[in-house]
Amino acid sequence: MIEEEVLKIIKPTEEDKKGIEKVLEIIRERLNKLDFEVEGSFRKGTWLRQDTDVDVFVFYPKDVGKEYLERNALNDIINRIKDLDYTLAYAEHPYVIVNINNVEVDIVPALRVESGDRAITAVDRTPFHTKYVTSHLDERGKDEVRLLKRFMKGIGVYGAELKVQGFSGYATELLVIYYGSFRKVLEAASKWKHPIKIELTKPMRAFSEPLIIPDPVDPRRNVTAAVSLKNIATFSVAAKYYLKNPSMEFFFPSKKVEEKIKGDVLILRLNLDEKSSEDIIWGQIKRSVNKIERALKQSGFRVIDIQAWGDTSNIVIAVQLESKNIGQYYLNIGPQYYSETIDDFIQKNDNIWVGEDGRLYSIKERKEYNAEAIAKKNIVLKVKYNIESYWLQNTEDQQIMKFLRKTPTWLK
Amino acid sequence: MIEEEVLKIIKPTEEDKKGIEKVLEIIRERLNKLDFEVEGSFRKGTWLRQDTDVDVFVFYPKDVGKEYLERNALNDIINRIKDLDYTLAYAEHPYVIVNINNVEVDIVPALRVESGDRAITAVDRTPFHTKYVTSHLDERGKDEVRLLKRFMKGIGVYGAELKVQGFSGYATELLVIYYGSFRKVLEAASKWKHPIKIELTKPMRAFSEPLIIPDPVDPRRNVTAAVSLKNIATFSVAAKYYLKNPSMEFFFPSKKVEEKIKGDVLILRLNLDEKSSEDIIWGQIKRSVNKIERALKQSGFRVIDIQAWGDTSNIVIAVQLESKNIGQYYLNIGPQYYSETIDDFIQKNDNIWVGEDGRLYSIKERKEYNAEAIAKKNIVLKVKYNIESYWLQNTEDQQIMKFLRKTPTWLK
Repeated sequence: MIEEEVLKIIKPTEEDKKGIEKVLEIIRERLNKLDFEVEGSFRKGTWLRQDTDVDVFVFYPKDVGKEYLERNALNDIINRIKDLDYTLAYAEHPYVIVNINNVEVDIVPALRVESGDRAITAVDRTPFHTKYVTSHLDERGKDEVRLLKRFMKGIGVYGAELKVQGFSGYATELLVIYYGSFRKVLEAASKWKHPIKIELTKPMRAFSEPLIIPDPVDPRRNVTAAVSLKNIATFSVAAKYYLKNPSMEFFFPSKKVEEKIKGDVLILRLNLDEKSSEDIIWGQIKRSVNKIERALKQSGFRVIDIQAWGDTSNIVIAVQLESKNIGQYYLNIGPQYYSETIDDFIQKNDNIWVGEDGRLYSIKERKEYNAEAIAKKNIVLKVKYNIESYWLQNTEDQQIMKFLRKTPTWLK
Repeated sequence: MIEEEVLKIIKPTEEDKKGIEKVLEIIRERLNKLDFEVEGSFRKGTWLRQDTDVDVFVFYPKDVGKEYLERNALNDIINRIKDLDYTLAYAEHPYVIVNINNVEVDIVPALRVESGDRAITAVDRTPFHTKYVTSHLDERGKDEVRLLKRFMKGIGVYGAELKVQGFSGYATELLVIYYGSFRKVLEAASKWKHPIKIELTKPMRAFSEPLIIPDPVDPRRNVTAAVSLKNIATFSVAAKYYLKNPSMEFFFPSKKVEEKIKGDVLILRLNLDEKSSEDIIWGQIKRSVNKIERALKQSGFRVIDIQAWGDTSNIVIAVQLESKNIGQYYLNIGPQYYSETIDDFIQKNDNIWVGEDGRLYSIKERKEYNAEAIAKKNIVLKVKYNIESYWLQNTEDQQIMKFLRKTPTWLK
């Protein structure tokens, strides 16, 4: 019932499809005589109605090498579309984004290899993924993938990008192929306990990640290597709760949330001057978040939660502490009385005593007890940025409200 | 040099001895026809000049039993001295304290047993201790014991009472008998690492305490069973530092100390209405101190140190915290996502999220975050008392200054 309702919203109509096909006609003409193919979810028939980006891959013989792709191939492509509305983008390698009638076409140069396990760059594997998925999914299966994608988007675990560390489209397709349907994926996921092994093909090496789906076109690779345990766990919990009590909230979370401030919440608003690719920025943001958390704990603060959100130019890091006030001094635990190091300890410390456990103790002054300063000092961004930071007093910002509430609206 | 100087102060003169003997003459007359003996450090020749209490034991046949001692024997003794300045006191059993010319004579009823290991109450063992010590210590040895006693008093580890949990006089005598001299005791102690076994006789059972001196007159008993690890460790450290750099400060700490308040210091001043024996009061004080520390830590406070001092009517408990301000809320760590208990956790908690480690977390409100209230609530005294409590702002009280400074003046 709910799932039918969701499909009505997310399944593209014939008209949607024709609109995209029309755009692709334009691109096809421009790429005339090149070895190109439509790839991605549009080609596989698993795209969602709201998604308006289409992948077109242009293949070159393996022998030309990676450098050829980045220069000659890219230039050739640009020359063919330069009168259109286009931008350059960077993933593992540069590619071209053309915008026609609000449809975004990614034109990606790749190397033509004999099989998935011979891929030189990640994109070379794509046509084999396309072939595997199209040959294993029927029409119903495609809709099941659409439901799973929308479910994962709703609960925030969809997207292979570093910012999300979630499931890729290909991963959702393999899950449906393996388990048979959206419901069956959820039933399985609700019982997951890592390490989870989903073997459409035998793995060709040992994987250490919590969720292991050896790539059927290249079994030395784990398709879900980059999915975080947090996202796996969130998906498992959401699956369990959806099966118990299905609702639209899982697919389209819409409830407005409100929550008071518990503890002390530091908001860091970063404004990045230069543009960089999302994965590069978010790699640095994630490192910063980890560094801030470690440094705060190291300094004696009790961190409740720390999260970051935003895009590639405006980023918020929110730090929630049990209290921003910690003492200026702390208990320092020294060696046992019989240790050879007690002389050194006694020399270097003040306020020394022998504890009930026979250890020497002392009182030390904290080097840093300003959480705001610690947080700012531990941001490691390689681009220039401005920062505004403040202790949260009150807010109407829904993102901050969600951060304060924590509990996903689909859960409770 | 230092030790000679100390001996000049602590070794009783012939005149001191005569003064006590004169007092004892009076007692001897009163106890005429009873089976009595002088015991304790005066008899053993190991008493310090400042100590003016003498033990006189009155023995009764073993067959009369403990109850006879507490009633008939005690009454008989009281009848004989009731015209003198006397008070009743309680240890394991009641005894009489007579004050004559500022000399305190403890008259203790005991049972006459055949040997130390046949003792029915602790005091029955005393004459065997006296015999053992007098037959193993020569005149020089007695002075070595005096030095050790004064050293232990100076560093605060002397006294078998619960309040101190330190070394008894008998323990100091056995240490000198075993190692040969004050210096040799220190040399050994400076290298101690528990468990420490000092076997003048083979133990008759296994002991679990950190310092084990089987009683030569009753090897089923560990003479130092009640010495705390803190006192053992303090003695070991003091021994090491005295040998390196001897000074009067170890024997007679006299330096006035000053220290600023680090962290937040809560002072609890207890005023006890009823009188009770010191060991009973201090048993309850020690339990209170432990309960307060546990409760504060349980509530999330970081305790730097907690100490108690005083007598049996005025007691101070000082609690030093890194900060008295902790948040109203705390991070609550829940089960892993795959646990069966997550439903229960989700139902009972608010502000729930999935952490990077796959665990569920929530924010909880502290039941109690007032350290002063927690401390007061955890005092377990069975006598009536008044309490005054305050957060230390400034002080001239030397006891509190010592508490703030921690470092013993003999150490640094």
